[in-house]
Formats: sequence, structure tokens, C-alpha cells
Amino acid sequence: MSKNRLEAFSDGVIAILITIMVLELHKPDGSSWSALRQQLPTLLAYVLSFVYIGIYWNNHHHLLATVRRVSGVSLWANQHLLFWLSLVPFITDWMSETDFAVVPVAAYGIVLLAAAVAFFLLQGTLLRVEGPDSTLATAIGRDRKGKLSPVLYVTGIALTFVDRWLGIVCYVIVALVWLVPDPRLERVLTSAGSDD
Amino acid sequence: MSKNRLEAFSDGVIAILITIMVLELHKPDGSSWSALRQQLPTLLAYVLSFVYIGIYWNNHHHLLATVRRVSGVSLWANQHLLFWLSLVPFITDWMSETDFAVVPVAAYGIVLLAAAVAFFLLQGTLLRVEGPDSTLATAIGRDRKGKLSPVLYVTGIALTFVDRWLGIVCYVIVALVWLVPDPRLERVLTSAGSDD
Amino acid sequence: MSKNRLEAFSDGVIAILITIMVLELHKPDGSSWSALRQQLPTLLAYVLSFVYIGIYWNNHHHLLATVRRVSGVSLWANQHLLFWLSLVPFITDWMSETDFAVVPVAAYGIVLLAAAVAFFLLQGTLLRVEGPDSTLATAIGRDRKGKLSPVLYVTGIALTFVDRWLGIVCYVIVALVWLVPDPRLERVLTSAGSDD
Amino acid sequence: MSKNRLEAFSDGVIAILITIMVLELHKPDGSSWSALRQQLPTLLAYVLSFVYIGIYWNNHHHLLATVRRVSGVSLWANQHLLFWLSLVPFITDWMSETDFAVVPVAAYGIVLLAAAVAFFLLQGTLLRVEGPDSTLATAIGRDRKGKLSPVLYVTGIALTFVDRWLGIVCYVIVALVWLVPDPRLERVLTSAGSDD
Repeated sequence: MSKNRLEAFSDGVIAILITIMVLELHKPDGSSWSALRQQLPTLLAYVLSFVYIGIYWNNHHHLLATVRRVSGVSLWANQHLLFWLSLVPFITDWMSETDFAVVPVAAYGIVLLAAAVAFFLLQGTLLRVEGPDSTLATAIGRDRKGKLSPVLYVTGIALTFVDRWLGIVCYVIVALVWLVPDPRLERVLTSAGSDD
Repeated sequence: MSKNRLEAFSDGVIAILITIMVLELHKPDGSSWSALRQQLPTLLAYVLSFVYIGIYWNNHHHLLATVRRVSGVSLWANQHLLFWLSLVPFITDWMSETDFAVVPVAAYGIVLLAAAVAFFLLQGTLLRVEGPDSTLATAIGRDRKGKLSPVLYVTGIALTFVDRWLGIVCYVIVALVWLVPDPRLERVLTSAGSDD
Repeated sequence: MSKNRLEAFSDGVIAILITIMVLELHKPDGSSWSALRQQLPTLLAYVLSFVYIGIYWNNHHHLLATVRRVSGVSLWANQHLLFWLSLVPFITDWMSETDFAVVPVAAYGIVLLAAAVAFFLLQGTLLRVEGPDSTLATAIGRDRKGKLSPVLYVTGIALTFVDRWLGIVCYVIVALVWLVPDPRLERVLTSAGSDD
Repeated sequence: MSKNRLEAFSDGVIAILITIMVLELHKPDGSSWSALRQQLPTLLAYVLSFVYIGIYWNNHHHLLATVRRVSGVSLWANQHLLFWLSLVPFITDWMSETDFAVVPVAAYGIVLLAAAVAFFLLQGTLLRVEGPDSTLATAIGRDRKGKLSPVLYVTGIALTFVDRWLGIVCYVIVALVWLVPDPRLERVLTSAGSDD
């Protein structure tokens, strides 16, 4: 089974998810700067989720870059990942509407955690097809970021019940970990590309 | 007529359908776990429809994989399928808003039945072009799942009037029938691919 | 300028337009068949617009099939067409919400007319690049459907003020004119394709 | 890293942005021409934003046309551009809902300015990879439009506090500057294309 349509479909879903979140941004009540400022928490939650979905698109892109064929199981592992990502706009909206209340902030972390697990499972099904000597296996390597993220999510969820802002801080840290470019991965991909 | 733009357009519509359903998920009233729990029926209806649209994307992908050219009639048969799929978010919303009342659950089954019939018609128009000795005809074979599904939908619609949960059970069974991987189909497709 | 990204972008916009209309379908008030039946006018307006946007996708597909390169002017002519198509969900909603009142039915016809004119202009900019001996010019030929449609739209808009259902009948006739397959066009395209 | 998926993803997001704005168009209150006329400011704001997003799609298309590979930094510079564009529907809605009040009109200009800066940054990251002798560097040239636009946006934002319509006029002028075709750019691109 070719990977092209899988990539196209995933791109479509992720592009829609990153965009429809803007439909949840409520118009400020009034036409003043202070009315806009009241929407700041909503805007910041939007920024965080926008960055997260951007990271997933980016990682998905890298993950499939070296893969050639996709099994039926990978197809459903991919749908499973898209399912959890599809809950991000819903949970972002709940979190910002309740002004970052404890339970919604924890639920946000749970959705992020589930998406991370889904990504890990998808990676596993692709690795099983590609084998341990594949470019993909080399590119993933020890997968330190992939293993660190769930730990930080669980920590964030737990800390939310101490202070919800500690939870948010954990989620922001995970985003930053992924945003900072990873020279190793790009090096492996570049050398794999130049082998062709 | 090339199949590429048909695939791209169908992928686009299906990606949007699977994603906009999340816009129908209402925010919980309040910021507690129990407020989230009250949204559980809505979430489960969402999961069911998400899986169904995922199945259609998957089957559509397989159906067109071996096809080379598409006739004008197939194009409209494809639009007809997309039409019924486009009603899934609407009917899912009605079903979950009415807490799975009898008529909406039956109407949900009718939309699923109509989509299955539309898929069958699309398959027929493609088969007419490809011929009985084509890879497509071999891949479809006796089409046991395709013939079983409408029977189960009709059973589900009928049983809904006895007990609406029996209807839901039928729809879940059809989803599971399609979710379980079908080794025969993949075998045929793989061997067809390796012939190239 | 390559036509691929233009096709991809147009497909994206048209796929979204055909799909978001379903967001305007209001849930029936209640959970009975009669509650669903009250939504019938809305559903029929949805069907008509779904078919119209499907026709535009189909024609757009055919129009660009034989074109190789796209000028800057064609790009904006294409955006102009997408603009009018983007008003279809809005005007469909208005028409069905007002139970097919006179002015909204006329306005619906005006949007359809503007889209037809925009399609005609786009066709013109493409023809200017391709030349009178191109496959495109042969495929379009005398463009009887393209010339008949605006006449029928104007008739429909005028007749709406006599009886709004006469307007709807005109719009349905135009849709049927396009839906019925056109053997000449397919013949030309097929023979052009087999020349490659 | 290949540019194809970046183009596809950006096309997806931009297609969705240009389309979902129509969801913000409110139905006229009533079924008369005057009810429709009351929606005229909303419609004009929609037209302006539709044209702006069309311009960005067009420029994005040109920008990436001559580029071969995309760095990790360009990927995030692209996400950054998409972020600001994603706020256009939100800010358009605020502006039209408040009947073009001073602060929303200024905020609209700020979002346009931020998008222009993001485009400039994206262009810079691409130029760094391509080098000063690349087709891209030649195509961009002195980038007069790109340098004029931010100046006009800042002027527009400032003039909004004198008279909000002066701000709108400035934004319309920028749109016209980009809409008028630029023969130099097309010439360079055409000659680059014929070198292949």
C-alpha cells in the first residue's frame, strides 16, 4: 500500500484541525483593546495548541519521509493518532472557556499524552515493516524526545492538581523540547537523502 | 479521465467530514470530571462516526488503488457516495443530542445503509470499466463484507424499534467486521503490486 | 506557472465548500420523523447546492485537464470563480432559513449566475494562452451548455418574482443539463488522451 | 526535506482559511433586499480578507516555485506565517461585527503587518539556503512590494486613529499593489522555467 494517499489524508486532517480551532476564538465583547485583552487566555491556549499540532505535522512528516510502504495496521495506527489530535480543538476550547480550571487542564494533558502514545504506536508499526537496519530505525535512534514527552505529560497532569499553572508549564516545556531543532535527525535524513 | 484528482477531491471531502464532526462536540457544562462524563454519549457517537468515516476512507483507498481510469459515471457515483457520507456529521449530532432516541438511531442506520449502497454502486461503475478479469474484480472477489453490511444495517434499523441499543450494537458489529484486517485482500493487492 | 498547485488549491476550496454546508443543517427540533420532515426544505436546498458544487468541481476538472500552463491572470480568474462559489453555502442557508422566500431565491440565482460568468471568464483566460487550435478549444467547441446556463439563470431570477418555485425549477433544469453526461466532450478528451 | 508536503500542507491551511470565513457571514435578518444590504459591510470585509488570503496563496506559490529543498527552520517560519494568516478570519469577524470600529480596524492592520513580517522571515530562511545567486534571489530582486507593504500597514494603523476609513483605504491600496500583475517577476520565472 502506497504511503502517498496516507500522507495526503493526514495532511488534510491536520491542516483542518489546526485551522478550525480559530472558529472557537470568540469575538471580544466590545471594540476596545481591553475587550481584546480579555480574550488573551483564549488566544494563548490557541497558540499552544497551534504549536502542538504544528509539531505533530512536522514529526509525522519526518516519520513517513523514509518509509516506502505502509501496512494495513499502520493505516489504523495513523487513524488512531488522528483521532486523538482531533480532540485537541475540543479540549483547548474547554480549557480556555473555563479559564484554565484544574480538570480541563488535566484533561488537556491526557489528550496530549494519548496522542504521544498513538504516535509511538504508529512508529512501532512502521518500524516492524521497515526492520531494525532501516533508515527509519537509524533516524529514530534512541528516541529520547519520544520517551521524555510522556513522562513530562504525566508529571504535568499530576502537578495540575497541585497548581494548574505547573501543568501548563510542563506542556510548554514539551513543546519547546520539540521546537528546538534536532541536528542529529536532520543529519541522518540528509545523509540518507544523499545516498539515493 | 485520470483518477488522481478524484482521489485528491475525495480525500479532501473525507478529511473534512472526519474533522468537522469535532465542531459538534459541545463543551461540558462546568469544569469537573462529571461535566465531562455527561458528554460521554456524544463522545462515543463521535468515536463511532470517526471509525466509520475512517473505514470508508480506507475502503475507498483500496477500491481506487488498482483502478487506472475513471469514467464520467464513476465520477458522479463517487459524488453520490460523498453526499451520503456528508450527512454523517449531521445525523451523528442529531443522534447524540437526543440521547440516542429511537428515530435518530434508525435514521443513522439509514444514512449508513445509503452510504453502503452508494459504495456498492461506485464499485459497480468501476468494475464495468475494468472488466471481470481485472485486478479490481479479483480483489473484490465475492465481496462478502460488502454484501453482509447492508443486511446488518437493515437488521439494525429494524431492531432499533425493539430496543435502540440493539440497533447500535448492529452498527458497531459492521464497523468491527471492517476493522478486522482482511488477509485475503492484502494478499491479492500485494501480489498484484509485485507483478508490476 | 504550473497548473498542479492551482488544481490542488481549487480542489481544496471546493471540497471544503461542499462539506461545510452540512454545518448549516440544523438539528431537527425533537426526535421524531416529523421533526426530521420539517428539515426537508433545508435538506433539499442542501442537495441542490451539493449537486451544483459537484458540477463545478467536475467542470473545473475537465477545463484544466488539457491545459498545461496557467498565466497570472488565469490564477486570479480562478480565485474570482472560487469567491462566488464560496458564497453558495451562505446563500443556500439564507434561502432555506427563509423557507424559500422570493428575494433569497433570486439572490441564490444571482450567485449561480455570477459563478457561471466567472467560469466563462476563467475559460477565456485559459483559451487565450492555449490558442484556438488547442485541445481545450476543441473540447469546449461551441460551448452550448455554457451559453445556455446564464440564459436559464436570468430567466429563473425573473420568474422568481412571478412564482419563486418557477425560479427553483429553472435552477434545477440547469443542474440537470450539466448532470446528463455529454458524450461529445468525453469523446474529444479520450481521443486527445490516446494521442499522447 | 522535500518541499512538496510543505506546499500541500500550506495549500490545505490556506484553502480552509479562505473558506471558513464564509461561516462567519451571518444570515440577513429577514428575507428582503434591505436585510441583505445591512450585511454589506460584513460582505465587503469578507471580500477584502478573501483577496488578502488569495494574495498570500499566490505569493506563497511563487516563493516556493523555484525552491528545491526546505530546511527545518523554513518549516517553522512557514508555520509562523500560517499562524498569523489563521487569525485573519477571527479579526475580520471582529472588525465587521463592530461595524469597523477604530480598535478592530487597527488590530486588523496589525495582523496583516505580522503576516507580512512572517512572509519576509520565511523568504529570508529560504534565501539563506538557496544563496544570493539562486533563481529565488533573482526573482525577489529588490522586493519593492515586500518592503512597501509594511510601511503602508503601519501608516494605515496610525491613520485609523485619525479616521478609521483612512486605515481601510491603506489596506485596500496594499491589496491593489499586489493584485496588479508584476511583469518582471513572471518574466524571470518564465525564463528560469525555460532553462530546465
